[in-house]
Amino acid sequence: MTSPDFLLLRAARREPTERTPVWLMRQAGRYLPEYREMRRRFGFLELCRNSEAAAEVTVQPVERLGVDAAILFADILLVVEPLGVGLEFALGEGPVIRRPLRSDGEIARLKPFDVESAVGFVFDTVRKARRALGDRVPLIGFAGAPFTVASYLVEGGPSRDYLYVKRLMYGEPEAWHRLMEVLVDVTARYLGGQIAAGAHAVQLFDSWVGALGPDDYRAFVLPYTRALVRALPPGVPVIHFGTGTAGLLPLMREAGGDVIGLDWRVDLDAGWRAVGHDVAVQGNLDPAALLAPPALIRERVKGILDRAAGRPGHIFNLGHGVLPDTPVEHVKAMVDFVHELSDRR
Amino acid sequence: MTSPDFLLLRAARREPTERTPVWLMRQAGRYLPEYREMRRRFGFLELCRNSEAAAEVTVQPVERLGVDAAILFADILLVVEPLGVGLEFALGEGPVIRRPLRSDGEIARLKPFDVESAVGFVFDTVRKARRALGDRVPLIGFAGAPFTVASYLVEGGPSRDYLYVKRLMYGEPEAWHRLMEVLVDVTARYLGGQIAAGAHAVQLFDSWVGALGPDDYRAFVLPYTRALVRALPPGVPVIHFGTGTAGLLPLMREAGGDVIGLDWRVDLDAGWRAVGHDVAVQGNLDPAALLAPPALIRERVKGILDRAAGRPGHIFNLGHGVLPDTPVEHVKAMVDFVHELSDRR
Repeated sequence: MTSPDFLLLRAARREPTERTPVWLMRQAGRYLPEYREMRRRFGFLELCRNSEAAAEVTVQPVERLGVDAAILFADILLVVEPLGVGLEFALGEGPVIRRPLRSDGEIARLKPFDVESAVGFVFDTVRKARRALGDRVPLIGFAGAPFTVASYLVEGGPSRDYLYVKRLMYGEPEAWHRLMEVLVDVTARYLGGQIAAGAHAVQLFDSWVGALGPDDYRAFVLPYTRALVRALPPGVPVIHFGTGTAGLLPLMREAGGDVIGLDWRVDLDAGWRAVGHDVAVQGNLDPAALLAPPALIRERVKGILDRAAGRPGHIFNLGHGVLPDTPVEHVKAMVDFVHELSDRR
Repeated sequence: MTSPDFLLLRAARREPTERTPVWLMRQAGRYLPEYREMRRRFGFLELCRNSEAAAEVTVQPVERLGVDAAILFADILLVVEPLGVGLEFALGEGPVIRRPLRSDGEIARLKPFDVESAVGFVFDTVRKARRALGDRVPLIGFAGAPFTVASYLVEGGPSRDYLYVKRLMYGEPEAWHRLMEVLVDVTARYLGGQIAAGAHAVQLFDSWVGALGPDDYRAFVLPYTRALVRALPPGVPVIHFGTGTAGLLPLMREAGGDVIGLDWRVDLDAGWRAVGHDVAVQGNLDPAALLAPPALIRERVKGILDRAAGRPGHIFNLGHGVLPDTPVEHVKAMVDFVHELSDRR
């Protein structure tokens, strides 16, 4: 049975669409009452590992918001738990790596592992979410890009300056390259498994790569992201996203992806010019704009759609994940504004 | 008596120079042994207020490093202390505002104050540093740009998402505009005082403005930075600097400044194209690159000079302040590399 010709997939291929598809990063998150309800029953990791519950959380925002895609509920660090770095999810703090990798010796000791047995539960979530979604909207799988996953492993968490990462890159480049090779391999198998289980598209989150300048990106990131994108099965759109990347966009495009995700710190038309009009783009409303009154949200949505200028290949999204304090009515209003203002029928 | 025709000032006017001038943001800082020695004798605020000691700290890096400019030793928040927001410098944490401004009511109560009596000690530092420097190198004065100072006043310190700031902008725009007007007025008088005391050039630090998207910059920042730049006496070059601004550069240039400061997240040639070749640029080595072995530092310095392509109007600097852990020999090596590799005689 073939899938219907979903709006999101057509936009990712830069085919004309009757309106602009929209979904939101972290659309299954704390701002949503039904998600908070689930989190009263399950810890974060527990929820990720319970494929029944994770599939339910994946589908909830589609029902509540009318978005044009579901995104798998999971976390970018699940796949590296078998590396034995002490992954924990501290309350309200996001992931913490208790035993960060700071030296060549620690990195050399990393062992290959079987992705299927480590995160088979994620593939189960994909299968269950696909069944629950039916033919309504496509399901997006995802993984952290090698740099961003490496940055957690080396820093131990999010960082301001990424100095451990940069020290490792500059001082022990062989160790850095070894770590990135491990992550390309693991991530290719992880995304391959999600696609085999039924993901229609995948997003690579290189969320923190904007800490780097272009020279570092070229030397320490680009070859690995490119190798990863090339290792994925053809025909499944890849969305390549980062934040703070306005100066890196041409290089991110060079690294790969059918769709480049833009954050809010660049005008959509300028970002699209920077990556080239022969790829699609996704974005790029400031998540904080959803705290504003609906009239301002509408104005900002219109501004972004105007900058896309009706060109095929725009997927509407925020420039990063939905903030926990966001009123759910504002999120719903934003989705409706995109549908209303982009209607080309 | 007129000043000599300093290298830095000629570059700021985009006149050809025999080599590229170089200085470093936070060149008087914790990485420098003689600065740490001073800090054993004085607390941070105490040091700022002691114009004799502050002038000494201002001059030290010129002697140690051979840089082509001194920058006033002070802090961007000194000038707003009279607003009564509870400014403190927590140990190793930077500035903290104990009573942040979060509402229209708090902002409406702000009172104008006499800048000379509040920060006259800064003007004394300028005069003493000028005397100590003689005709060796020019002295750069500085202030926080209105947005960045407002961001401290509203958030209470540096922030990840600047949500209090954005809530205020979106939810109580009149209060935001009122606050920015106060800051333009205070900052114009503050920089005017530094210039009257002898500063040869001034830098506006809009360090955190990169948190905003272009639409917010246009609506909530640009008019104020522009008003400030226009309020300064003509003939004194203004360096306009921010970080994370790759997507904002054309707007920053529109706001004003003879020199636009670039951070390391954009290639220097791309950044210069974005602001236009009819202004000068400053930057843009990643401060973390100074943690790398000298061979890599040399390569990166050369890369930046090559991107400037011998075009008049480049001032070499880091993309942000020197990091505290930086080896002082690496800083000295960097300055020497710039001098050696940019020699056009």
